[in-house]
Amino acid sequence: MENRPSPTAPIWKRNIYRVVFEADTRAGQLFDILLLLAILLSVLAVMLESVSSINAQYGPALRVVEWVFTVVFLVEYLVRLLIVRRPLRYALSWLGLIDVVAIVPSLLVLVLAGSHYLLVVRTVRLLRVFRIFKLGQFIGEGEFILNALKASRFKILVFLSSVLTLTVLMGTFMYVLEGGQNGFTSIPKSVYWAVVTLTTVGYGDISPVTVLGQTLAALLMIMGYAIIAVPTGIVSAQMSRSQAAAVPAAGATPPVAGTTAGLAAPAYKQARCSRCQAEGHRPDAAFCWHCGGAV
Amino acid sequence: MENRPSPTAPIWKRNIYRVVFEADTRAGQLFDILLLLAILLSVLAVMLESVSSINAQYGPALRVVEWVFTVVFLVEYLVRLLIVRRPLRYALSWLGLIDVVAIVPSLLVLVLAGSHYLLVVRTVRLLRVFRIFKLGQFIGEGEFILNALKASRFKILVFLSSVLTLTVLMGTFMYVLEGGQNGFTSIPKSVYWAVVTLTTVGYGDISPVTVLGQTLAALLMIMGYAIIAVPTGIVSAQMSRSQAAAVPAAGATPPVAGTTAGLAAPAYKQARCSRCQAEGHRPDAAFCWHCGGAV
Amino acid sequence: MENRPSPTAPIWKRNIYRVVFEADTRAGQLFDILLLLAILLSVLAVMLESVSSINAQYGPALRVVEWVFTVVFLVEYLVRLLIVRRPLRYALSWLGLIDVVAIVPSLLVLVLAGSHYLLVVRTVRLLRVFRIFKLGQFIGEGEFILNALKASRFKILVFLSSVLTLTVLMGTFMYVLEGGQNGFTSIPKSVYWAVVTLTTVGYGDISPVTVLGQTLAALLMIMGYAIIAVPTGIVSAQMSRSQAAAVPAAGATPPVAGTTAGLAAPAYKQARCSRCQAEGHRPDAAFCWHCGGAV
Amino acid sequence: MENRPSPTAPIWKRNIYRVVFEADTRAGQLFDILLLLAILLSVLAVMLESVSSINAQYGPALRVVEWVFTVVFLVEYLVRLLIVRRPLRYALSWLGLIDVVAIVPSLLVLVLAGSHYLLVVRTVRLLRVFRIFKLGQFIGEGEFILNALKASRFKILVFLSSVLTLTVLMGTFMYVLEGGQNGFTSIPKSVYWAVVTLTTVGYGDISPVTVLGQTLAALLMIMGYAIIAVPTGIVSAQMSRSQAAAVPAAGATPPVAGTTAGLAAPAYKQARCSRCQAEGHRPDAAFCWHCGGAV
Repeated sequence: MENRPSPTAPIWKRNIYRVVFEADTRAGQLFDILLLLAILLSVLAVMLESVSSINAQYGPALRVVEWVFTVVFLVEYLVRLLIVRRPLRYALSWLGLIDVVAIVPSLLVLVLAGSHYLLVVRTVRLLRVFRIFKLGQFIGEGEFILNALKASRFKILVFLSSVLTLTVLMGTFMYVLEGGQNGFTSIPKSVYWAVVTLTTVGYGDISPVTVLGQTLAALLMIMGYAIIAVPTGIVSAQMSRSQAAAVPAAGATPPVAGTTAGLAAPAYKQARCSRCQAEGHRPDAAFCWHCGGAV
Repeated sequence: MENRPSPTAPIWKRNIYRVVFEADTRAGQLFDILLLLAILLSVLAVMLESVSSINAQYGPALRVVEWVFTVVFLVEYLVRLLIVRRPLRYALSWLGLIDVVAIVPSLLVLVLAGSHYLLVVRTVRLLRVFRIFKLGQFIGEGEFILNALKASRFKILVFLSSVLTLTVLMGTFMYVLEGGQNGFTSIPKSVYWAVVTLTTVGYGDISPVTVLGQTLAALLMIMGYAIIAVPTGIVSAQMSRSQAAAVPAAGATPPVAGTTAGLAAPAYKQARCSRCQAEGHRPDAAFCWHCGGAV
Repeated sequence: MENRPSPTAPIWKRNIYRVVFEADTRAGQLFDILLLLAILLSVLAVMLESVSSINAQYGPALRVVEWVFTVVFLVEYLVRLLIVRRPLRYALSWLGLIDVVAIVPSLLVLVLAGSHYLLVVRTVRLLRVFRIFKLGQFIGEGEFILNALKASRFKILVFLSSVLTLTVLMGTFMYVLEGGQNGFTSIPKSVYWAVVTLTTVGYGDISPVTVLGQTLAALLMIMGYAIIAVPTGIVSAQMSRSQAAAVPAAGATPPVAGTTAGLAAPAYKQARCSRCQAEGHRPDAAFCWHCGGAV
Repeated sequence: MENRPSPTAPIWKRNIYRVVFEADTRAGQLFDILLLLAILLSVLAVMLESVSSINAQYGPALRVVEWVFTVVFLVEYLVRLLIVRRPLRYALSWLGLIDVVAIVPSLLVLVLAGSHYLLVVRTVRLLRVFRIFKLGQFIGEGEFILNALKASRFKILVFLSSVLTLTVLMGTFMYVLEGGQNGFTSIPKSVYWAVVTLTTVGYGDISPVTVLGQTLAALLMIMGYAIIAVPTGIVSAQMSRSQAAAVPAAGATPPVAGTTAGLAAPAYKQARCSRCQAEGHRPDAAFCWHCGGAV
């Protein structure tokens, strides 16, 4: 977001930037709400077009709608590129790439039929619009969840490797035990069955028939039932810890000096920096961490 | 509940109020139990009427029962309105609105056939009767759960948005991959399938057939299996925290003396040793651990 | 267990008691292992008899086995009654009642065909045999789990009431929306479907067909997926707390005096009382909580 | 791993040891990556061979590939035995046994058709290759999870016993209630159904049809839905505790100074302010919160 037009840029650039990229003005909020609606409607149009009965009646109209939205998003993308200070940097950022991905499938359909369904990736753009609600809150919570997952990434990787090894082994055993006539026609398909069973999804499109196969399947289910405790335990423990690190204990935990009874480190101050409006200061901060101004 | 009749109201009003709205007298408790029974029976009658074999035989009788209960609840509602100090305020409160909702479907059936099944919303009224058991306990626990959920609402919203985006994307990919002949007849239906799979429900009414589709489905299942750790972790961490904040540290924890920073009180007996005044006995202790005297 | 023969009872009574009721002698352990085998074999016999192909061939033999085990358990029960100090007290205790329940179905079969299958309740007797492994450990852990559940009973009750209300409401809506031709033939059946869906079991014997029904079902699934976080959170938080209350922090938490940093209350001493063999003393106990003797 | 060649061993032995057993040299890492590829390819070959359409076309080629890999792994195994100091000790270690198991099925196929599918146990060897990534991390996390499970083993055993008892009882009740014509053809099969239901897998290959059976099944589902909270709670609580015990309190927590009792360190930057030496800056801070100087 450090890509705002330079202070020497023409005034209209800076004005449009505030509307298109920020959400702290009336116009900026209105723009975000309209964008939100446009994304939802365009995804809805794609989804409806795929329903054959609706397609038969309103197909042409829906395709027109899709093209209109594609043009709208293309214009929006070009405007964004035009007003930021370094267009290339924006184009290569996550947000910029998602913008492109939301436009490309419409053009792709000219060479590859059916690819316009990929327009639903536009739903990912919805994440951008979170900031019309309390930006900080949402980004913060999202980051909290992501951080808890990231801090547990080795545990989760070890867990997934074990699950995969288990499903490959169990799938093969079932293939040998049950055989093709009961639906276990190949090892890959049996591994698919093992995943369906271990995760407790249980479609029932393939299910064991022999006594030995059912016994093994029952074992796998109980394993799956118990194993789910592991990722849950990992994430719970991690979140308890992250939360403890982010929440102020009443009156306790002065960050500068003193006896803290542990458990909880300080949350952030409510106030914003009077100069740069940054949030997230320590409760005892005297200066802004962002611009160095007094808080 | 601050809607009790004024002290200058006629005595019968105040007496009925105690019976109908409160549960600290014999009559009040009896009233609540009868109301509980009436609600259960009326819901049961509606449910039984929907069973065709029972309807064929006892249909008219069941419809009479429904009307009787409707009249009973209507009278009860009018009495409540009559005796509270400000009837309008009661009528617009949560409890008052639920009372109306429990009556309306019976009348609605005169204009819209089948709508009387909505009488089962009466089950919601059961929540009102929690107070014949230990009111405080139930309300308290319910509030505890609600508060834990409320404190996690942003995290849960972020989580649900991610889940929805994921199901829309996966549903569309599957629609493109599998196509209508394997049951994925439209994007909305494929999104429905993605929800069925991600939540590990797995009906099996639609299930992938192609190798690529099954691979993608297996991925989605493992995601669903892992993702469920997130809401669980959120709520667990929140409840641990709420609970820690709700357990009184004051005076409870230190078995004899000392400064404790709280969190957990040992499961000791409340009583002190009559001889040496030591605390911290096992709940089933017969003798003092400190002096050997009887506890 | 406070039902041992009085010290003045004949020596054979006290010896048999040690073998039959306790597990700290060689003979006592051997008895428990034989009993364990007998229970497993008798349950296995009942299960195998229900398989028609096995029944056709070995039916009579299996029925003889069942009767033999019934007689064995009957004799065991009578011996137990004979040697305890107060037979009636034993007969009315949990263990005594389970003993009777493990015998009765065999006799019941004389008046009600098929009831002998209920002999599988003998599996409950397995729980008694836990004490050949480390008795204290198992009972302790079982009690730990039960206590965590008991401490959460109001929360769990509130949770279950909400789940039931939700399934009744959703079941009825689906009955109105989908109707009998899609399998939702009555409200009770639709409520059954709602339970199958909310708990993420998802048999697929009944599943929604209309667009509206599938949308509502998807909502219910996501609810079920999120709601499962609640009991898990309740039990996790409770267990964290119980554990904290039961586990010694390294060097911390002297129960008599001092500054405790919270979180952890003392576990119990390893030693047994030299007089009554009771376990579970405080780490700093000087006297037995059970008999008042020195530890 | 304390089985490295003695320092007096010929230089080539020690060099090969570093390549084959360790991963801290270029050659050692390359060897591990090649081994990883070989394992994956050999498992893939076995899996593909089981797909009949692929087998019809490429069967002979795939069988050649399998034999080549078997020879490669055999040579690798012999080399390992040759260079370690005590071959027998390696042969009897976990890793050595897995090496054998990864070779044997190829030879077994000469006496027992179809057994070569067991070659997929080679996937277990993948676990050995974790050390090309950060060895310590993975082993450490794996051990963390295993320890949490081990510390909870009694609780888990009690839990599994209860689940098994419950499924045996419920399965038998359903067998008596529903009977063979609804798919509950024997008690073992009904117990299988109970496991499928309790673990929320729900294939739907067997599902209750009678009203009483569906009611009982709904009860079992809700139990299963609630019971899953128990292992999750056990593991969560255990992990929270293990984690608390593993996070270093020493020196980390206090942002500037003070005695903290540990548990949680705030997510602050490591750096100190160059002007006032204050710690505890946000990870993205550009200025000191304390003196306003650049960090």
